[in-house]
Amino acid sequence: MKRYLLAPGPTQVPPEVLLAMAQPMLHHRAPEFVTLFKEIREDLKWLFQTRQDVLTLVSSGTGGMEGAISNFLSPGDKALYVNGGKFGERWGKLCKTFGVTGIEIKVEWGQAVDPQVIADALKKDPTIKAVYVQASETSTGVAHDTRAIAEIVRSRDETILVVDAITALGVFDLKTDEWGIDVMIAGSQKALMLPPGLAFVSVSDKAWRLADKAKNAAFYFNFKKERDSQQKNQTAYTAGVSLLVGLREVFRILKAEGLGNVFARHARLAHATREGMKAAGLSLFPKQNPSDALTVVSAPDGVDGQAVYKNLREDYGITAAGGQDHLKGKIFRISHMGYIDTFDVIQALAATEMVLKGLGYPIKLGAGVGKAEELLLKK
Amino acid sequence: MKRYLLAPGPTQVPPEVLLAMAQPMLHHRAPEFVTLFKEIREDLKWLFQTRQDVLTLVSSGTGGMEGAISNFLSPGDKALYVNGGKFGERWGKLCKTFGVTGIEIKVEWGQAVDPQVIADALKKDPTIKAVYVQASETSTGVAHDTRAIAEIVRSRDETILVVDAITALGVFDLKTDEWGIDVMIAGSQKALMLPPGLAFVSVSDKAWRLADKAKNAAFYFNFKKERDSQQKNQTAYTAGVSLLVGLREVFRILKAEGLGNVFARHARLAHATREGMKAAGLSLFPKQNPSDALTVVSAPDGVDGQAVYKNLREDYGITAAGGQDHLKGKIFRISHMGYIDTFDVIQALAATEMVLKGLGYPIKLGAGVGKAEELLLKK
Repeated sequence: MKRYLLAPGPTQVPPEVLLAMAQPMLHHRAPEFVTLFKEIREDLKWLFQTRQDVLTLVSSGTGGMEGAISNFLSPGDKALYVNGGKFGERWGKLCKTFGVTGIEIKVEWGQAVDPQVIADALKKDPTIKAVYVQASETSTGVAHDTRAIAEIVRSRDETILVVDAITALGVFDLKTDEWGIDVMIAGSQKALMLPPGLAFVSVSDKAWRLADKAKNAAFYFNFKKERDSQQKNQTAYTAGVSLLVGLREVFRILKAEGLGNVFARHARLAHATREGMKAAGLSLFPKQNPSDALTVVSAPDGVDGQAVYKNLREDYGITAAGGQDHLKGKIFRISHMGYIDTFDVIQALAATEMVLKGLGYPIKLGAGVGKAEELLLKK
Repeated sequence: MKRYLLAPGPTQVPPEVLLAMAQPMLHHRAPEFVTLFKEIREDLKWLFQTRQDVLTLVSSGTGGMEGAISNFLSPGDKALYVNGGKFGERWGKLCKTFGVTGIEIKVEWGQAVDPQVIADALKKDPTIKAVYVQASETSTGVAHDTRAIAEIVRSRDETILVVDAITALGVFDLKTDEWGIDVMIAGSQKALMLPPGLAFVSVSDKAWRLADKAKNAAFYFNFKKERDSQQKNQTAYTAGVSLLVGLREVFRILKAEGLGNVFARHARLAHATREGMKAAGLSLFPKQNPSDALTVVSAPDGVDGQAVYKNLREDYGITAAGGQDHLKGKIFRISHMGYIDTFDVIQALAATEMVLKGLGYPIKLGAGVGKAEELLLKK
């Protein structure tokens, strides 16, 4: 049985990128590395839509999240965070670990945060130093309105906005500088089409000023130290050379397609997936703002979402994702970010129809696929 | 746009095989080569279902076809050949090149040869030394009845049966020894899931006896010379080492699946493709005996088959095949041999539906896919 990866990270890696990474190992202190890293640093600014430095770290995205707490806040500082899913929840745990007073904005899973709630909270307590939010909450498939939130935070000189864009960067538009996102975090294994192992963090001048005052332990994820190294096209610790060689190839692909086209492709494929699922008689889990990174489907009555996830893998070779925590069994999740095109969506829908039919759910085989075909037809 | 290969050769190569072939080059006179080639020669016998030697040649399948004329026949000898398509026609050209008197059995393209016609021709002229036929005629998608033909030829001591199994070996059952196929030819780039570059030829004792009397020029494709070398686990000329390293991996895959399961998979996928095309309102080109290697579809009225082929590639990234010679524009061909599974069939059907809809043909999107889903559902 052929195997397919349609999980929300790690995602599929293009063959050109796999080939690039299979080249003989480059040493991270060799002159060629400096040339490579200089090029990548410029391309990261292009992708992040920023003139600020974008730091590259050898870690998963969570390392970037940790650094985005420890580098900017001191024990006793207050931070507002949006908890609308598994990844929002993580901000709370990180605050606790670093002695930061986390003020939670609890959002029902499947809903997007109301930006006004953030505005009210900041007005009520002007000493809040940072706002933490996901651009795309991977556990629920909801996109929070980063632009509206940035609009609220940018007017405050003493408060930064930190955005987890791990499943958002390279999927939909995020104008770091124009909107005023102070810190934005991404990971290699999502729309960047690489294996896991790299995190990327952009840092604004406002955030660096906050970092100057922060008193928290940060050795490995020390952003200032990395900034000083990386401005010289070096890394503080051993660089993830193979992944960076792969990333150069990823940028060739992304730049050839063009950022606007990359976003349009994700929007088109996400739309076709959602409409296909609906045409197959299924309901989407997000109540509003579905993320274009992945489609989260509610398991229909009488069907165990985990069985869908399990049968997709065991009967059809497709690794997608189930639900986490209280959503376990209630949903299944299918990614369409990164190295994804028309027939990944067709496959996801056909397999979903077949799995549900196999589980005894009355579904018209081909109905969802037919809808997606209609939406993805080239004129 | 992602690219997909659904042509009747070269076909998709499994990633494990590509990786195996990317290993450092092995020298063909090194002791490791002897070990490798010994193993491969045994596995070829397993795949060919024969106790006879199976020769490995560095050439495309046509090299094997040439050798199957030049090594067994002398100028002036008579050979009967079935011409029911582009590849049947090739026997005639080869006969001419080597001074052999080719007696053609012309079969309408899209039809299978009637074995009785072969029996009658052999009865009429007992001096015919060989019968040449395709097990699967790739240009029309028709399978000739090799078993019935072998039944006719095997009783004749002075006539051999030569079967072009280039798009048949590893697709459907061909019992070389049990049925009495004297010479059978295969190529690496079809169901053997390798890049082009190797031909394989099995030779029976009856055929070797004929070879002893043959007087035709054969230097590169000299089967006796190859037999004598290969029985010592060496090749007469430079061996295709990378492809052989890949072939070892192919055999691991095929043996793990089991020959019966390999045939059953092809039968299931071919059936689903044919029924899917019919459910989409299309007609199959073969009037009888459709080959499980590929599905050949008649272009519907008012639709140019070459436009289907072209749009599959240009709009959807799928390389399939059009028609050849007088079938150009009248058909399109989609392969399902080798490294092929459920979603290749789903993709082929979805793309066909989309292309035809795009060409203005009234087709119900999802109808063909739905039928294939039903047939390929795992219980």
